Amino acid sequence: MDVIILTIGSEILKGRTINTNAGYIAAKLYAAGFNVRQERAVADSEETIVRALGECFSQAELIIATGGLGPTRDDVTKSAACRYFGRGLLFDQEYFARLEDYFRRIGYERFPERSRNQAYVPERAKVLPNSRGTAPGLLLEDAGKVLILLPGVPGEMKALLEEEVLPYLIERFRREEPHSAVVRTVGLGESVIAERIEEGLAEIQTALLSYYPHSGMVDIVIASAIDAPPADRESIAQVAEHVAGRLEGHVYAREEKSLWEVIADLLTARGETLAAAESCTGGLISKSVTDLAGSSRWFNGSVVSYADRAKTDLLGVDPALVRRQGAVSEEVALAMARGALEAFHADWSLALTGIAGPSGGSQEKPIGTVFIAVAGPGKQAGRRFQFGGDRAQIRQRSAIKAAELLWRSLLAGQPVVDS
Amino acid sequence: MDVIILTIGSEILKGRTINTNAGYIAAKLYAAGFNVRQERAVADSEETIVRALGECFSQAELIIATGGLGPTRDDVTKSAACRYFGRGLLFDQEYFARLEDYFRRIGYERFPERSRNQAYVPERAKVLPNSRGTAPGLLLEDAGKVLILLPGVPGEMKALLEEEVLPYLIERFRREEPHSAVVRTVGLGESVIAERIEEGLAEIQTALLSYYPHSGMVDIVIASAIDAPPADRESIAQVAEHVAGRLEGHVYAREEKSLWEVIADLLTARGETLAAAESCTGGLISKSVTDLAGSSRWFNGSVVSYADRAKTDLLGVDPALVRRQGAVSEEVALAMARGALEAFHADWSLALTGIAGPSGGSQEKPIGTVFIAVAGPGKQAGRRFQFGGDRAQIRQRSAIKAAELLWRSLLAGQPVVDS
Repeated sequence: MDVIILTIGSEILKGRTINTNAGYIAAKLYAAGFNVRQERAVADSEETIVRALGECFSQAELIIATGGLGPTRDDVTKSAACRYFGRGLLFDQEYFARLEDYFRRIGYERFPERSRNQAYVPERAKVLPNSRGTAPGLLLEDAGKVLILLPGVPGEMKALLEEEVLPYLIERFRREEPHSAVVRTVGLGESVIAERIEEGLAEIQTALLSYYPHSGMVDIVIASAIDAPPADRESIAQVAEHVAGRLEGHVYAREEKSLWEVIADLLTARGETLAAAESCTGGLISKSVTDLAGSSRWFNGSVVSYADRAKTDLLGVDPALVRRQGAVSEEVALAMARGALEAFHADWSLALTGIAGPSGGSQEKPIGTVFIAVAGPGKQAGRRFQFGGDRAQIRQRSAIKAAELLWRSLLAGQPVVDS
Repeated sequence: MDVIILTIGSEILKGRTINTNAGYIAAKLYAAGFNVRQERAVADSEETIVRALGECFSQAELIIATGGLGPTRDDVTKSAACRYFGRGLLFDQEYFARLEDYFRRIGYERFPERSRNQAYVPERAKVLPNSRGTAPGLLLEDAGKVLILLPGVPGEMKALLEEEVLPYLIERFRREEPHSAVVRTVGLGESVIAERIEEGLAEIQTALLSYYPHSGMVDIVIASAIDAPPADRESIAQVAEHVAGRLEGHVYAREEKSLWEVIADLLTARGETLAAAESCTGGLISKSVTDLAGSSRWFNGSVVSYADRAKTDLLGVDPALVRRQGAVSEEVALAMARGALEAFHADWSLALTGIAGPSGGSQEKPIGTVFIAVAGPGKQAGRRFQFGGDRAQIRQRSAIKAAELLWRSLLAGQPVVDS
């Protein structure tokens, strides 16, 4: 069954709101075995929505639309849907009673008149009750075309999607569970990966591959293409094995786990802890680590040593060393790593010092020069890297390289800085 | 001139990648005075792309497409564009030389053969050089239809959009500068803002308002609606004055400046510096601060004190105080703020300690309890906050509240924790 996701809202087209709804719905549908053929965003205009519905239904049997169900005058999705299907809007006494109850519960003394129109629903539509807000989800069906309308507020949309829409779609339309595999890698570029993998694969196997570069790493997903007939579980497993074999040493996960989650597992299994000393990355590594729930069990903390004096005062780096080698040097990175290990009583530490730009570069140490050190049980190691891109990219690439080196070090049981 | 933004990439339709490109392009175009009529995302299939180009050009004169320009076999945007315009793909010797140079610079010993196809460009296309990667931007024009192809990697897309595409579009197609005004606020919810603002405005003035909540703050933009005739500069200025007046005390900028940029200006003007001690936010504040180029001039650093011992060892918090009050307490937040001020020899500091969840809450201090302290010249102040949402939202709301308090403190010349 082919699906189109239609986002309704002028705020999207003005770029003031990032359209996270479409991606969320797409991921859930894909995981459940449905093909999203297209995503489309249009303005809050009845004319435009009616036209979009016509075009989309010429390409897919199911449209999931979000937005435009609110109580204000720019919410016209319901009337557009009625016009497209040639139906009227009827007052739903039962839903109105729910609304009255909802407003009473959240402390309104009188019913807000503006919200009365939320109890109007298209004739013969199935009402999907919204436990978190006032706009109901709606399901309209006619001559093999299914239109599902969901509110644009992400929390309300998500609850309705999971509680009502997905169970309905799986029950009604899904024939078989989808098969796919993922190989997540770090330290290799997309073109090198493609070269290594595709050699030795038949055309039909290559067609199963998709490459997803994200934040400097590359995921390889093995699954049937959207436009192709579904591949069987065995073919997918076979290609996944081939891919993982060709990329050995760079595969950190064969499931939907991030590099930091893999590191968390390794540290937890060893009962060990981590600390960091971040100069050029300025807290990016700490932030990524502490994004993970439960990181307090294995992450002791970090020093963001932006000023040189923080390196000497808090991390115990010898001021003479900073003067002699410069704050951006392998020796200082190593001393920072040792300092972080001691200051935080940790088993492992990462330290970074470099030039993220846009200024501060020199002939000898141009922008993008970053020294990374790893300290671990009884040892430490450091190395110079040269990263490209702007300030944000240099910072991100540095943080990922540091995570990669830590991952390699944990696997080796000692600090490793070669990748 | 009407524009459609076309995102090409199966990863979008599978929900693996959030489509941030479309929103970014939309915002830039809108600010430059162009109307985005639709956003569309389609799969990496030549057939599908050709069809989408046909449909989109029936509704708009300009299409900006991103994605599908990489070196792998699922990158088919160029061949689809050639098929749509009836042109061939030619090898561009000059661009190939640039590519060779690029790979040499980033340390490749031999040219990756797979990347050779990036030097193939459609006949009569204008090549927009990509300073950050290997895929060039491309501009194709035929019979009043303009197609601009940009790489999908956000950093590369952004650089090309700003350096090449926008100047071209403005020069070539824009008739008059759009009028709009922005009022950026912190500390008030969207519905409270709407209530305060809309009272006392005529219908025609209310139609100029849009609300853009982002990361816990709300921007109010005053501009003509996409489908309405343009408003004159004077009406917009008048409404902007009214809005700013009604929201006094919460307006941190009347231009496209972030709250941290405003804080940077205030600190720089005073010649003062900042430090931080982050527990529950785990580096989020440091990361946001150091995202800004030039932050090393006023940001000395921070301690991410995830383990209690980091609070006592590095920030000098009395261990007895931690035992008595608990690590999550106003007293410890105040001690952390003082400790950060001293450890980093800074003029101002922010400290946060709280429970971001998903576990660790109690009856007395439920998840979302966060203590924030500000220390400044000779004084400090702290306060308890209760934030809602999941771990990520609690962390983000804490970081924004801390920035708001610092902003208020800098304006007052002394620590302020009331908002």
